[in-house]
Amino acid sequence: MKVDGKHFRTIWLAEDGWGVEIIDQTRLPFEFVTVRLESCKDAAHAIFEMLVRGAPLIGATAAYGMALAVRADPSDAALKRAHDELFATRPTAVNLRWALDEMMAVLGPLDPSDRAAVAYARAAEICDEDVGICHSIGVNGAALIKTAAAKKGGEGTVNILTHCNAGWLATVDWGTALAPIYVAHDAGIRVHVWVDETRPRNQGFNLTAWELGRHGVPHTVIVDNVGGHLMQHGMVDLCIVGTDRTTAAGDVCNKIGTYLKALAAHDNGVPFYVALPSPTIDWTLKDGLRDIPIEERDAGEVTRITGRAADGGVSTVTITPDGSPAANFAFDVTPSRLVTGLITERGVCEASEAGLKGLFPERA
Amino acid sequence: MKVDGKHFRTIWLAEDGWGVEIIDQTRLPFEFVTVRLESCKDAAHAIFEMLVRGAPLIGATAAYGMALAVRADPSDAALKRAHDELFATRPTAVNLRWALDEMMAVLGPLDPSDRAAVAYARAAEICDEDVGICHSIGVNGAALIKTAAAKKGGEGTVNILTHCNAGWLATVDWGTALAPIYVAHDAGIRVHVWVDETRPRNQGFNLTAWELGRHGVPHTVIVDNVGGHLMQHGMVDLCIVGTDRTTAAGDVCNKIGTYLKALAAHDNGVPFYVALPSPTIDWTLKDGLRDIPIEERDAGEVTRITGRAADGGVSTVTITPDGSPAANFAFDVTPSRLVTGLITERGVCEASEAGLKGLFPERA
Repeated sequence: MKVDGKHFRTIWLAEDGWGVEIIDQTRLPFEFVTVRLESCKDAAHAIFEMLVRGAPLIGATAAYGMALAVRADPSDAALKRAHDELFATRPTAVNLRWALDEMMAVLGPLDPSDRAAVAYARAAEICDEDVGICHSIGVNGAALIKTAAAKKGGEGTVNILTHCNAGWLATVDWGTALAPIYVAHDAGIRVHVWVDETRPRNQGFNLTAWELGRHGVPHTVIVDNVGGHLMQHGMVDLCIVGTDRTTAAGDVCNKIGTYLKALAAHDNGVPFYVALPSPTIDWTLKDGLRDIPIEERDAGEVTRITGRAADGGVSTVTITPDGSPAANFAFDVTPSRLVTGLITERGVCEASEAGLKGLFPERA
Repeated sequence: MKVDGKHFRTIWLAEDGWGVEIIDQTRLPFEFVTVRLESCKDAAHAIFEMLVRGAPLIGATAAYGMALAVRADPSDAALKRAHDELFATRPTAVNLRWALDEMMAVLGPLDPSDRAAVAYARAAEICDEDVGICHSIGVNGAALIKTAAAKKGGEGTVNILTHCNAGWLATVDWGTALAPIYVAHDAGIRVHVWVDETRPRNQGFNLTAWELGRHGVPHTVIVDNVGGHLMQHGMVDLCIVGTDRTTAAGDVCNKIGTYLKALAAHDNGVPFYVALPSPTIDWTLKDGLRDIPIEERDAGEVTRITGRAADGGVSTVTITPDGSPAANFAFDVTPSRLVTGLITERGVCEASEAGLKGLFPERA
């Protein structure tokens, strides 16, 4: 999407044809900085430290990480090492596993001398495929927004609430939850987005508000506590969120706090949609609440927060009293019964085994 | 309660017998500073700028504000002016109106020369009455915690989730939602409190974690998004929150985000209690969602956050991108259907008109 008029993807091949460039998302929204990756280690670091985040972008970065690894050392041992190093970075990201398995399947049978060229080509394809998938999600989801606009007589603005960042910054382009919003906005439908802060890492303020603002989409930032009140008072027409992992039964693992918004939507008759590229579906799991392990992250994400100080510099402050321990669960699971529909690249379906298998009959 | 071993109330008469001292709660948890009030204007400023907050403490401060006013000028006109100045500070605080009406009723009929002495005496009584009410809430609520402990075979720790600050800092002493926790803890029952951050003003981190820590109650701070996940996984035995205003039908207006926690409690069969002193009941209202106006506060509370910088100083940072507007709804309404019970100074009742009138038959 656009950053103040200029088109960007979140990951791209450098002009020299072998380095890989990314946007350092930890420095948004205060600084727009690109970083060059030159090794598998650089890619693993970018994923682990969340310079890149979002399931599809993690997958794309891991694919390029494999390409950087085999460029340096195309041996079987190096290939295996790269796979393991990248896999260890984020335990809940199913796209990561998918992208690494895919690269292993493509590269493993090849003669080592052929691996680098094929790895770069396949990584580029994975990126292009992701852009295609996200654009299709956008088109399919925009139809729901169009319907909501029509319900309002085509006059009013459609108010959409989102949580965390499932925008173009979380993918290669377009995004998942935000793709329908970009497609609708670009088509001239009046949309307005309520952007949840998404504590503790503030991806809503740092990333979603930033990318919507840069592309020119009207939005308002709110703290995570506000969504229920808005829905009680008819100020939300629909919710759209992303997901890190969806079970075959339609349970949705997404950023911590998603479940609370789904409960509020359900209690107030507000449609609650989850946008997802099919690689984030984990067909081996059914009961998300029972089967998905929830990552616990560093307590410092809770006790400290980063912003711009009065002097213009970026500063981190501690916001808890001395001696108070913090717990930091990174995700929660929204049961399928609270999800109105899943927006995929193939269309919109019910959040259920039947719904998903209707769109993906090859899994039935 | 105790601050590192020494007993404090939140408001007390200075040693000279006429000034009024308070804790400047805007500077917690980073600095423990007391402030001396010498005029009605000082009291109004302390309420408006939230040096004091919490319905009962606002009422107590307003009562002393009236005393300071009539000490300076005991005329009918000054009395009326003081009432109006104090009433304008916080539109949703029903205790404020109650305390001001009470002071007017007591002082109005008196000869102006008698007003100051009576005003100080009545303000002191209002404080003592509040301490008595809060201690009774503590005793009544502690029985529920004792029951939860017994259910766990008396061995395990009782995990209690709270939102915002309804602790002793919100009252004159003991608190409302935290009073049962203090009473249970002091009685040797093992309790552990999950403390919601409570964005945007962070009263959970700044005040609740601080006061629990100073008194020695085990607790863990969490962001507002986490409570649903904890309840899904059996990590919360009960929720106890406070309220700024309760309707005659048991609907509860409390800090923004309370409704989301009540939904999660309901969805997971976790008891959700609201602790309240009876003066916060608005007997004139029934439907809280329809009838209670929700205060919108300054967007700067959302876009900026204050903490301790690396150099040890207190610093405020901006956490939103340039050009993103913010909305700041301060409260929400939790419908009575989601409330397991109301903990009052007279006992615990169902959150309904029948429940409340059973405890307060004089209102029937």
